[in-house]
Amino acid sequence: MERGRFITFEGGEGCGKSTQVKRMKEALESAGRKVLLTREPGGTRLAELVRTLLKDEREDPPCDRAELLLFLAARAQLVRNVIRPALDSGVWVVSDRFSDSTFAYQGYGRGLPLDVLAIANDFACEGLRPDLTILLDVPPEVAARRMREREQATNTAADRIESAGEAFHSRLRAGFIELARRDPGRIVVIDASGTPDEVWEAAWKSLKRFG
Amino acid sequence: MERGRFITFEGGEGCGKSTQVKRMKEALESAGRKVLLTREPGGTRLAELVRTLLKDEREDPPCDRAELLLFLAARAQLVRNVIRPALDSGVWVVSDRFSDSTFAYQGYGRGLPLDVLAIANDFACEGLRPDLTILLDVPPEVAARRMREREQATNTAADRIESAGEAFHSRLRAGFIELARRDPGRIVVIDASGTPDEVWEAAWKSLKRFG
Repeated sequence: MERGRFITFEGGEGCGKSTQVKRMKEALESAGRKVLLTREPGGTRLAELVRTLLKDEREDPPCDRAELLLFLAARAQLVRNVIRPALDSGVWVVSDRFSDSTFAYQGYGRGLPLDVLAIANDFACEGLRPDLTILLDVPPEVAARRMREREQATNTAADRIESAGEAFHSRLRAGFIELARRDPGRIVVIDASGTPDEVWEAAWKSLKRFG
Repeated sequence: MERGRFITFEGGEGCGKSTQVKRMKEALESAGRKVLLTREPGGTRLAELVRTLLKDEREDPPCDRAELLLFLAARAQLVRNVIRPALDSGVWVVSDRFSDSTFAYQGYGRGLPLDVLAIANDFACEGLRPDLTILLDVPPEVAARRMREREQATNTAADRIESAGEAFHSRLRAGFIELARRDPGRIVVIDASGTPDEVWEAAWKSLKRFG
């Protein structure tokens, strides 16, 4: 049986990832693929508990290093118990965030050492890397506007990472772009300031590599 | 102000660590030191939640790599928020397990790569190492007898790691001994098959290095 493909979506808050991830799933299924959607951190019971720990700001918010290690623990469990078995059985896996988010947020964003992150992440993933990563890039002002609109629409407050401030988000964006520059064969950068339909057209085109 | 000293106790199940850790705290306090006791994983709210995840066998037991990363996340939080501030303010810290347990259990015991463990652990600890590590070494048959006695006395069942089997425990013991051989300046090996008083006498003597 042909191994499934592993496609990840990356980008900062307000880049429109969730919308595009869902469209990708639907389009692949229409094309006759079996598709599994995952999100990070999530997809396993352990990872959902980790997600709860990460959002806990009240009594004992995780320090930067603990945060990174919790993300990697969740990823290790997701790769081992969900992503790898799916790929091996021919299912395509589409993930809302994966390793590049670690390098962008914890490395470029928070300043943790990139060489150590790469080693620890490879350990967590047992060497698994996406076949294709779609990076949705938006200028900060577009991202900020979308996040304000979302908060108003859902009547929710921004969480710890979402509210980390402008300087953080511009380091993050530059980090993602640098990751794409270093690995152009895997990471496709798409201008995500357009309409959802425009972004989707570009995202779907990037799958041509799979024939 | 003089920086506090960091003393860790290591050894397999049934080596008598808990007893010796408490005696060390009491003896140091009698000698006029301020002492903080920590245990791993624990000592912070985040770490206690991680401990709960680790003991969860029912629905989604952590894979080996997730387990290791959860331990390190708990350690990162403990070092950053508890151990370092204590040492900096002159408090002596006595810990029931620390980094050597990671190398012994996850490295020698479960076969995860020691070089990666060392890098990831150093990252979690921000380079902090114990000033003295007391390794309580017992032959497997003594450890097994003590654990049976404890189960009968407390009417509890062994947990996932405690019940991992004989081959695992003998790899573990050999691993601890190898760690001590590699770092004889820091790790003192004490034969813990004697009475608690005999073991304690040897443990207390090992503090001579601090003058």
